[in-house]
Amino acid sequence: MKLGDGVEAAIHCTTTLAGLRSDAVISGADLANGFGVSASYLLKHLKALTGAGILASVPGPKGGYRIGRPADQITLLDIVLAVEGAEPAFRCAEIRRRGPGAPGADAYPNPCGINAAMLRAERAYRAALREVRVSDLLADHLANSDPRVVRHGCAMVEQFQRLQPNAAN
Amino acid sequence: MKLGDGVEAAIHCTTTLAGLRSDAVISGADLANGFGVSASYLLKHLKALTGAGILASVPGPKGGYRIGRPADQITLLDIVLAVEGAEPAFRCAEIRRRGPGAPGADAYPNPCGINAAMLRAERAYRAALREVRVSDLLADHLANSDPRVVRHGCAMVEQFQRLQPNAAN
Repeated sequence: MKLGDGVEAAIHCTTTLAGLRSDAVISGADLANGFGVSASYLLKHLKALTGAGILASVPGPKGGYRIGRPADQITLLDIVLAVEGAEPAFRCAEIRRRGPGAPGADAYPNPCGINAAMLRAERAYRAALREVRVSDLLADHLANSDPRVVRHGCAMVEQFQRLQPNAAN
Repeated sequence: MKLGDGVEAAIHCTTTLAGLRSDAVISGADLANGFGVSASYLLKHLKALTGAGILASVPGPKGGYRIGRPADQITLLDIVLAVEGAEPAFRCAEIRRRGPGAPGADAYPNPCGINAAMLRAERAYRAALREVRVSDLLADHLANSDPRVVRHGCAMVEQFQRLQPNAAN
């Protein structure tokens, strides 16, 4: 089983943006720089997060990304589904119906038991991801990281954030 | 998140072989024919299952595959790990440590909280897969499938199975 490596960057970016003041944004290029990933690679994922309402983008040369809704309303599952798509990991190709002499489709009124069992396990995975909010990740990071790491994060935000003069709050 | 499509074939083949009499095997080519998948594609997965002790292979022109241990001792998790590898789906590249001015490795004595949360969810997924045994899948199939489907499976086994004259039982 594989998750694309965009998921890690997407979660880190969302958590970083959740820590910004509400009138600030960070550009995609600066986020990429801050996490040492390629900007074009990251941009694709930032767009997916924006499409899902997890981030919001402010256009223009002084624009960038901010959180799209409160961090306690964004779960790890939201981020994973935005980046990876909502398709299940197990995709049943109904190979049970193939092979010489297999009966017609009307002999298979119920989902394949194998598919059902695989999807049950995915529901358990998604439920566990749904339990973790970005606000939890941010609080855990601030409470349990080495002070040098917290200072580094704050300095990065201080350096990269762009304050929006016309922000509502 | 994606699982390789070999998983579906691997589970179907293992469940089919679990229903064989103990002195019988089915060749990889016949299993591929029975499920309408390419033999070279299937062979790779049958080898992985054999390497994990889920299947056993009998060499020679009359050889083939049989179950490697009792079907109530094989879980969906065993099959998924054999085919997909044991690596976690989420692979932390420690991007938190990158970026200009990040502190040294000694500032990160604990695993990243994001990685820890993602791995917790994977443990829930694996626990759910571990709960389903191949014997359960086989019993469910026999109890709940349309009689035509069961007859088709039996006919396929009857046609493909190769009895081993020197089998221990």
